[in-house]
Amino acid sequence: MNKINIAIAGLGTVGSEVAKQLQINNEFLSKKAGRKLNLIAVSAKDKSKNRGFDQSKLNWFEDATDIASLNEVDLVVELIGGSDGVPLELCKNSLINGKSVVTANKAMMSKHGYDLAKLSEKNDCSLAFEASVAGCIPIIKSLRDGLSGTKVNKITGILNGTCNYILTEMREKGLNFDEVLKDAQDKGYAEADPSFDVDGVDAAQKLSILSAIAFGISPDINNLSISGIREVDVTDIIFAQELGYRIKLLASSKFDKGLVQEVSPCMISLGRQISNVEGVLNAVDLDTELAGSVMLTGYGAGAEPTATAVLSDIITVAQGKCPYVFGLSTNELSLNVDTGEKENYRYYFRLNVIDKSGVLAGVTEIFRKYSLSIESLIQRGRNPNEEVPVIITTHETDFNTLQSVMEDLSKSKELLNKPVCMKII
Amino acid sequence: MNKINIAIAGLGTVGSEVAKQLQINNEFLSKKAGRKLNLIAVSAKDKSKNRGFDQSKLNWFEDATDIASLNEVDLVVELIGGSDGVPLELCKNSLINGKSVVTANKAMMSKHGYDLAKLSEKNDCSLAFEASVAGCIPIIKSLRDGLSGTKVNKITGILNGTCNYILTEMREKGLNFDEVLKDAQDKGYAEADPSFDVDGVDAAQKLSILSAIAFGISPDINNLSISGIREVDVTDIIFAQELGYRIKLLASSKFDKGLVQEVSPCMISLGRQISNVEGVLNAVDLDTELAGSVMLTGYGAGAEPTATAVLSDIITVAQGKCPYVFGLSTNELSLNVDTGEKENYRYYFRLNVIDKSGVLAGVTEIFRKYSLSIESLIQRGRNPNEEVPVIITTHETDFNTLQSVMEDLSKSKELLNKPVCMKII
Repeated sequence: MNKINIAIAGLGTVGSEVAKQLQINNEFLSKKAGRKLNLIAVSAKDKSKNRGFDQSKLNWFEDATDIASLNEVDLVVELIGGSDGVPLELCKNSLINGKSVVTANKAMMSKHGYDLAKLSEKNDCSLAFEASVAGCIPIIKSLRDGLSGTKVNKITGILNGTCNYILTEMREKGLNFDEVLKDAQDKGYAEADPSFDVDGVDAAQKLSILSAIAFGISPDINNLSISGIREVDVTDIIFAQELGYRIKLLASSKFDKGLVQEVSPCMISLGRQISNVEGVLNAVDLDTELAGSVMLTGYGAGAEPTATAVLSDIITVAQGKCPYVFGLSTNELSLNVDTGEKENYRYYFRLNVIDKSGVLAGVTEIFRKYSLSIESLIQRGRNPNEEVPVIITTHETDFNTLQSVMEDLSKSKELLNKPVCMKII
Repeated sequence: MNKINIAIAGLGTVGSEVAKQLQINNEFLSKKAGRKLNLIAVSAKDKSKNRGFDQSKLNWFEDATDIASLNEVDLVVELIGGSDGVPLELCKNSLINGKSVVTANKAMMSKHGYDLAKLSEKNDCSLAFEASVAGCIPIIKSLRDGLSGTKVNKITGILNGTCNYILTEMREKGLNFDEVLKDAQDKGYAEADPSFDVDGVDAAQKLSILSAIAFGISPDINNLSISGIREVDVTDIIFAQELGYRIKLLASSKFDKGLVQEVSPCMISLGRQISNVEGVLNAVDLDTELAGSVMLTGYGAGAEPTATAVLSDIITVAQGKCPYVFGLSTNELSLNVDTGEKENYRYYFRLNVIDKSGVLAGVTEIFRKYSLSIESLIQRGRNPNEEVPVIITTHETDFNTLQSVMEDLSKSKELLNKPVCMKII
């Protein structure tokens, strides 16, 4: 059995788990690869730290970029993270030097994926990144290989486990966003600075990678509208339940003449499978032309699930398979595609107003003005001259009408704060 | 762009759809493959039939086995079906002649998969069979490539769409098995002879293929216990709902010292995602060591979903990827593995008895005799001296105890017919 020499750059929880598995399950993994998976080098700052695997016989590099020029390394596993700087330089130089790269770096693949794919093609080596989207869920291989025979109409995903955990906890425990966030931070499910997750950026980066494969385009993070979950209130969650919906941060994209990519909290009918994906789980629902809907669910984060995706990529690369990075030759990928027209949806509104006569008339007048037809309106309880939420769901409408209504609502003196609005799907 | 010459044997609904797509979407599919997908030959009996694609310029063979010796063919797509005879001969001879094979044939892969894998290795060509299990769901690639980095503890699948459709209809419409079966036959969801589906054979063949990849063994259809859905009564479905379960025909396997493969109707807690997989949908839940549970859902049958899997395999083969057929070199696959010990489960019983004094005592005495602890017992309504169902759920027990109880129940004079029993998961 010949061997493949591997170096890991970045020994956080995922990198350490990958190294550990390459040691303790080496026979099992090497048999699958058909080659001896030979970990020879690692890079991290602190050599003295105990990381749960035997570091004693490995070549150690403080500067990860040094790995790219090591003759004896065949495969570089980049687990440093971040779109630019050291990880990018390491991956570029590794590919230029004919080394294959496995990475979990969504920020880098989203921003520089096209250039890296070009380099991997030019230098005839592999670039694998299954772990960059949805942890252990084999969504990249499924889109690119398993479902390559059909066009994809639409992607709908729960791609951020932190947000899904927070929304699930808010619903189950009736707590507000801030309370659950704090608890999630204490438990290690959310970062000290949570904005990357809760503001939807993480999900957006992942979505742009999936869109690239699904629609044959270069990853396009600019052509994407993002809103996170900070404005979701426990009131919305309670009304969602009453109306037969569940709130999830959905990442969705479609390509039809132009590209529409969006990350936003949505009201999902309880009849749809994806509404039942709870806690830290991720899910991706692919609406395909020939095969209908195909959905994959699993753990989208965590050391072991993410390490599984990295290890599976290592095996694939070791087997010598070298498919097109984004499912097509980079020459065939479309660049700078137009923005498409947003689909029509039904919408949910929460409008916080003062409970007094004439307010409802003032609010509903705005909907009438733009011919946006109201399906249901709930104002519950009597609270004269105090703040009450008015909940409105509408019939289907186009995005321009929605924007006009939102603009007028935002200017309305009847509303005590910004109107909250979510798509219903 | 160089080309790959393709022949399709078997022009039923799936074969015709594959041929049609290779014609109308040729540019799209060829770009993905990186090679021109060039359909040159087909085989079927009736040349005059209109099959929705242009047959005029294709080489036509009445005897499919002739295709195996055509020099100009690089890839044979076998869609005839059946474990032996013509399809087996075609696949064997194609591989011997160095042609790659794509097949949807679960019966053949389940029975002869190991020998065919040997042939493909020896002759250095691909053997792909994604369409043989769960239609368009990329479960074979997910198990073999996407999740190769982790051991699989257990597979739990809904692998037969006909059974799932029947059980869903029985529940939603309150109809009995025979009524729904007739309706399914009228709609084309069930065959005129439904036994292959409803008795669990189809699901068992598929399960043996998944077990082979998950556990590194040769497909083993003998080491498998099968019971179908004929004995599931609408009464069971109503009680399942009341008790918080849904009945599904589950195919499950695990390997721990020995192999345990089972196809049987089960009571699934509504809290488990797989309980919500309804109608003709299939699903596979993989319980893995490192990545936890990963579930895939989609259409398990039908011309277009199955054609999607075949087309995706054609693309993969055209790209020249040639992984181990069952995820390991055939030399590494275990043969003739032992039967393992069945897990402990809770169980549901339906016992049809005469509503008269002393009957319950007689029945429950059997459970007491084997120390099988009863969790709940329902006997509803008063129907003196008439037939009533007694519903019993038990605490967890081992399979030997279950068998002893079932034996005594079957001999009991109190029961009017065979006891019905299902695992609760």
